[in-house]
Amino acid sequence: MRPQDLIQKKRDGGELSPEEIALFVRGVTDGSFADYQAAALLMAIFLNGMSEAEAQSLTQEMLRSGEMLDFSDIPKPKADKHSTGGVGDKTSLVIAPLAAACGLAVPMISGRGLGHTGGTLDKLEAIKGYRVHLSLPEFREILKSVGFAMMGQTADIAPADKKLYALRDATATVEAIPLIVASIMSKKMAAGLDALVLDVKTGSGAFMREEARARELARALVATGNSCGVRTEALLTDMNQPLGYAVGNALEVHECIAIMRCEMNEHARPVLDLSLELAARMVSSAGVESSLEAARERVQRALSSGAALECFRRNVEAQGGDARVCDDPSRLLDLNLREVRVESPHAGFIVKVDAAEIGNAVAAIGGGRTRIEDEIDAAVGFLAEAKIGDKLSAGDALGLLYCRDETQAQSASARIRAAYEIEDAPPSLPNQLIKEVITE
Amino acid sequence: MRPQDLIQKKRDGGELSPEEIALFVRGVTDGSFADYQAAALLMAIFLNGMSEAEAQSLTQEMLRSGEMLDFSDIPKPKADKHSTGGVGDKTSLVIAPLAAACGLAVPMISGRGLGHTGGTLDKLEAIKGYRVHLSLPEFREILKSVGFAMMGQTADIAPADKKLYALRDATATVEAIPLIVASIMSKKMAAGLDALVLDVKTGSGAFMREEARARELARALVATGNSCGVRTEALLTDMNQPLGYAVGNALEVHECIAIMRCEMNEHARPVLDLSLELAARMVSSAGVESSLEAARERVQRALSSGAALECFRRNVEAQGGDARVCDDPSRLLDLNLREVRVESPHAGFIVKVDAAEIGNAVAAIGGGRTRIEDEIDAAVGFLAEAKIGDKLSAGDALGLLYCRDETQAQSASARIRAAYEIEDAPPSLPNQLIKEVITE
Repeated sequence: MRPQDLIQKKRDGGELSPEEIALFVRGVTDGSFADYQAAALLMAIFLNGMSEAEAQSLTQEMLRSGEMLDFSDIPKPKADKHSTGGVGDKTSLVIAPLAAACGLAVPMISGRGLGHTGGTLDKLEAIKGYRVHLSLPEFREILKSVGFAMMGQTADIAPADKKLYALRDATATVEAIPLIVASIMSKKMAAGLDALVLDVKTGSGAFMREEARARELARALVATGNSCGVRTEALLTDMNQPLGYAVGNALEVHECIAIMRCEMNEHARPVLDLSLELAARMVSSAGVESSLEAARERVQRALSSGAALECFRRNVEAQGGDARVCDDPSRLLDLNLREVRVESPHAGFIVKVDAAEIGNAVAAIGGGRTRIEDEIDAAVGFLAEAKIGDKLSAGDALGLLYCRDETQAQSASARIRAAYEIEDAPPSLPNQLIKEVITE
Repeated sequence: MRPQDLIQKKRDGGELSPEEIALFVRGVTDGSFADYQAAALLMAIFLNGMSEAEAQSLTQEMLRSGEMLDFSDIPKPKADKHSTGGVGDKTSLVIAPLAAACGLAVPMISGRGLGHTGGTLDKLEAIKGYRVHLSLPEFREILKSVGFAMMGQTADIAPADKKLYALRDATATVEAIPLIVASIMSKKMAAGLDALVLDVKTGSGAFMREEARARELARALVATGNSCGVRTEALLTDMNQPLGYAVGNALEVHECIAIMRCEMNEHARPVLDLSLELAARMVSSAGVESSLEAARERVQRALSSGAALECFRRNVEAQGGDARVCDDPSRLLDLNLREVRVESPHAGFIVKVDAAEIGNAVAAIGGGRTRIEDEIDAAVGFLAEAKIGDKLSAGDALGLLYCRDETQAQSASARIRAAYEIEDAPPSLPNQLIKEVITE
């Protein structure tokens, strides 16, 4: 079968067989499927969709395009969490130590921030000396000794995804659910997990703004994970405002360490609540506790006892970072920054927040990237004090902006101020952090 | 606007502005629009369509990507005919001399055969010495002195089409009507025509098998031609069986010369009828005669008087061919070929013919190409004697196959025999040669 025959089949609404999908993925990897042919097929998939069986075949073939990580010598259940990304979404830094402290091995392969969203690797690098570029033997060693290890995507894992993602990005075919599913799951399945918990964000700062689309994605991810033999569940969670307190890499690490030190600011509460729930579901799914209730208690104990913080400290040390931040998180802060109070322009209730715009405003002053090759200023950011439903007077603080100069102060505070919709009447519905649990 | 933003707009069903289409076509030509981006956009156009305005902008921009031919120094109306292609479709060889003999200048830029369809250039090359690779000055000189000239596509005319066509061929996006329209019309518009007549084929040997799709294509072609200021009309014509008598390059030229010598075999009648009608419409559209009736009479006189044959002879001489074929068309035939009588396996009426399969059977023995770089055996072919509606006894001839050896004889005659559906009852509907005239 020639590439164009395969494209034509999908173009005409047909269902590709596992063999045809294998032909495509292998062809993309070995070059027998030209980039332009892959691009045409991606657009046909975008517009005509894929069945669950096709998405699962695509995941399997992308997984097979690269190497499997074998951690079978580590005598612990393996589990991971994956978030679809958002603004102020820093739960990985709390969840990985929590889950590790409960007896799981968490081989976490993370990404960089791009556009309005942050990335775990950027956050970790806000810790002086922290290395995210590990060799596979180093990664394995740290996973074994600490219980969790953090690194970036390697060229050996699902190389077809790397190629296809670059093509999707250049051809406006990123947001197709089966392609997202295969991209996420092929990489996650490479780690040989027992359990996977997904945090699928929805709202103004999420990749999938519409809740119905996010739910569709969550269901497809869960179905694919389970069909690959990994116990998978998903939480559909709120991204209608920055998650918790901080947006900006160093500020977010500071927030996480404060949580693990049990001295958090009240604005960080959603980060703690979501981290506990996601970690508890990893612990129960992986079979460490037989009930979710027992898992929740166990995770809570790992936090209160300081075991999670201790685990985090050992990871920072193992990955070359300055572990003194665990005792004194203020070491993460840059005292040369300007602090600008961003004020509410008038009185009223916060009814809506454009979370992506807050992410973009922080990215624009160096806190994020518009292109993957951009350098990052880890210190800048925003502390979001006001939340949806809050009643404000004119001049009350929306939050605190940390930036380098007057130009940044002007531009970023104006953008952030404009991201808040403040009206006379309170919002009609409360903003629910966890909207739904999807287990099949 | 980035390429991916433009792709996204069409992906989401939007209408591209003339500026956006210009950006695309220029980008494809200068490389700022990558092949994979063009391929994704082509698939989005295939699946989401284009408005008439978009198709016209695309035509205009593809035309602007190259050079215009300027024949304004030739003091005659310029007109051309274009067929969407079929099996045994050799009318260009009769129409061009007919129209030229009636006082038109016919600058005919033609193509090669591919798959089951033939091409005018291949047919002309069956005449010993005939050169289709002319320089533009040569082409102009022959057009001026003879009244018609024939050549292949040059790199200077609509180069964007050349690039896009190659991409469409490799990405299963050939059959999209707006893309077909822009491809055909951008090249035709480059010749500065006064009138254009289109022969849009429908049926088992046509590019557009379904009559409704062919009608849609014909309407889009006519609308685009007229919007570009060229008087354009289309005939929707039958391609449910080979047109006329011969399939195969030399045999087809033989058939055309016999027609122009007024000594044709009766099986060639549809070629004559269609050629006269298309030529008459060129003559009337271009304003040489004020009524179609008068144009028909004029064209008929050009045939009967031998003026068309004379015009053909002068063209063959001017393009370097052996003009003796005009006096003795049997010079075109290769007497070393085997002649195989293909017989009806049983008695009955011919109700259906797979014309594409007959084209493919001839191509497979060397008479056509499966890839554009394939060499052609001009001599082989098939003379179709039996037509839809004919009543046959078992063993009656379907036609005569001309081939090189026993292997070819076996394979091709089996394929051709299987292409005829013969049943007890006659077909319910007569097979109409000209199904519709489309003028707007």
